Amino acid sequence: MPLIDVHCHISPIEFPAAPSSEAGARWPCMRCASKTAGTLLIGEKPFRELDDRSWDVSRRLEDMDRDRVSIQVLSPMPELLSYWHSVDDGVVICDAINAQISEMISQAPGRFRGLGGAPLQEPKRAAGYLKRIKEEFGLSGVEIGSNINGIMLGDPSFDVFYAEAEALGLAVFVHALHPVAAKTVAVTPSETAFVYFPLDVAMAAASVAMTGLLERFPRLRIAFSHGGGALGSIIGRMDTGWELTEGFGGSMAEAPSAAVRKMFFDSNVLDPAYLSYLVREVAPGRIFLGTDYPYLIRQQDPAQLISNLSLSDHEVRSLRCGAAEAFLGETFGHD
Amino acid sequence: MPLIDVHCHISPIEFPAAPSSEAGARWPCMRCASKTAGTLLIGEKPFRELDDRSWDVSRRLEDMDRDRVSIQVLSPMPELLSYWHSVDDGVVICDAINAQISEMISQAPGRFRGLGGAPLQEPKRAAGYLKRIKEEFGLSGVEIGSNINGIMLGDPSFDVFYAEAEALGLAVFVHALHPVAAKTVAVTPSETAFVYFPLDVAMAAASVAMTGLLERFPRLRIAFSHGGGALGSIIGRMDTGWELTEGFGGSMAEAPSAAVRKMFFDSNVLDPAYLSYLVREVAPGRIFLGTDYPYLIRQQDPAQLISNLSLSDHEVRSLRCGAAEAFLGETFGHD
Repeated sequence: MPLIDVHCHISPIEFPAAPSSEAGARWPCMRCASKTAGTLLIGEKPFRELDDRSWDVSRRLEDMDRDRVSIQVLSPMPELLSYWHSVDDGVVICDAINAQISEMISQAPGRFRGLGGAPLQEPKRAAGYLKRIKEEFGLSGVEIGSNINGIMLGDPSFDVFYAEAEALGLAVFVHALHPVAAKTVAVTPSETAFVYFPLDVAMAAASVAMTGLLERFPRLRIAFSHGGGALGSIIGRMDTGWELTEGFGGSMAEAPSAAVRKMFFDSNVLDPAYLSYLVREVAPGRIFLGTDYPYLIRQQDPAQLISNLSLSDHEVRSLRCGAAEAFLGETFGHD
Repeated sequence: MPLIDVHCHISPIEFPAAPSSEAGARWPCMRCASKTAGTLLIGEKPFRELDDRSWDVSRRLEDMDRDRVSIQVLSPMPELLSYWHSVDDGVVICDAINAQISEMISQAPGRFRGLGGAPLQEPKRAAGYLKRIKEEFGLSGVEIGSNINGIMLGDPSFDVFYAEAEALGLAVFVHALHPVAAKTVAVTPSETAFVYFPLDVAMAAASVAMTGLLERFPRLRIAFSHGGGALGSIIGRMDTGWELTEGFGGSMAEAPSAAVRKMFFDSNVLDPAYLSYLVREVAPGRIFLGTDYPYLIRQQDPAQLISNLSLSDHEVRSLRCGAAEAFLGETFGHD
């Protein structure tokens, strides 16, 4: 039975030059001490220490073999999604990261799949870009932020994008990015990473659940990182609201909990008890493995994690591969 | 075994006049169609339909008897906490609501306890006010917002207030109020009530957990409404962060999950499965009943709710009365 890790990131070792000095102030650039390690700068500021796990396929395969991971689904470091640049500049970075994912897949096509980036600062442009994601780069879907420059994902301005993803059969993976709440209060970097990321993902998923997005696009395959963030803690409250307001004023035919069970979520909650609750109560059959490889804050030894949970064979299969296959729209070889 | 409901609100049927036209723009006022029902206006705008359950003790006792609730712990409708007024104007409203709670308790002293309001827009003034909460109004503690005009509860500016609450043995009940994230994105009233309230409570509890508040004030009894909001979904992530950052840079000796187990939470999550998870995994012995009586979005028939959960006798006792008694610092007669 394959073990599929749907939440792992890549970064190029080289980036195209900034197209303008305006873009340069927030443009990514690697400052490398060697071929195996360096610092990602955003503008002039160090953003994250990276090593060759972010770009070197042979290094990745070593770790995957050690961790008994059959397939990694590669997605961009979220900071590279670049919604804050002009759409033309955003496309320059999307092209670079998507080409990198495509190239990494080509080196070991049985071991990798990819979720690319698209310039959602202009939803129509991003919709048009999806065809390139599928045909030119050969990817399975797209990674998007938990908010797009502060706009929630259920906003109808994004419908043109979801419609095209649904039509092309591309999976949509929503990842925590620039949490809106962290902009309004004084928070430390620790609070942002450990508290505000999962809250932002919950806001994203709740926005999708409460605006009936999956009623408008019933074949859309959409997943949320970090186990949906805090979503699993507020479903009863959302459902009660839906009951008391007669479907939020008639805008939703089904309860939010029913919408949640049509979404997918990764397992990346770093808490076996909460993960068990998600698998059993929140979205049975819709939770797939996601580790956040290769970053520091990640799930270590995922095969062991799954073995240690008290799950049925059916639940184990879903978590190891079944939910990922349903999300990606592809079945992989089973033993 | 008594059934103690720690989360229930009151509102006066009459308010003092606005002290100034500036205050008047956001001053509460009841427009009553009868003695049993009316509309609470904030400034000129209708805020909420209320009825005599908010102010009439005999009406409350009928409902409590029907619901088999032994004791209600009365707290102000959170919108009355008035942090957005000048501190002098805030005290005018605090005096009115605390007097009302005190008066309601005096009518049935065996059936009610109270948590008052204090003017936390000036923490030092609020600290001084706590003596009146205890001695003049005879209350068990204080209700505070999940943020104070956008400032998170772990901010050291509030330490003077927590120190005094700890010294006086007053309980602190944190309630969702004006969620900061809802100010930065376009959200509907439904999204605010059903999604952003619990996320704001999680931000409040995480702020307390990650700034070591309960290491600074180890005898402080602090509780969070709505089951801590989304807190129970992010504890593994906070703990992982604490491990990876060596205690958030040495600022915290104990893991956030250990801090969480020193807090109290109400049961008001409107979801039996999530409530069971809280009771068993997040904060055993620290979850007390809270219904949000008399508002529309509330837990109905709490005795039945608790009976229906598959809990041990020990867990049932804690949820019905034990955790509330520990939070309030008082033991009630047991059968």
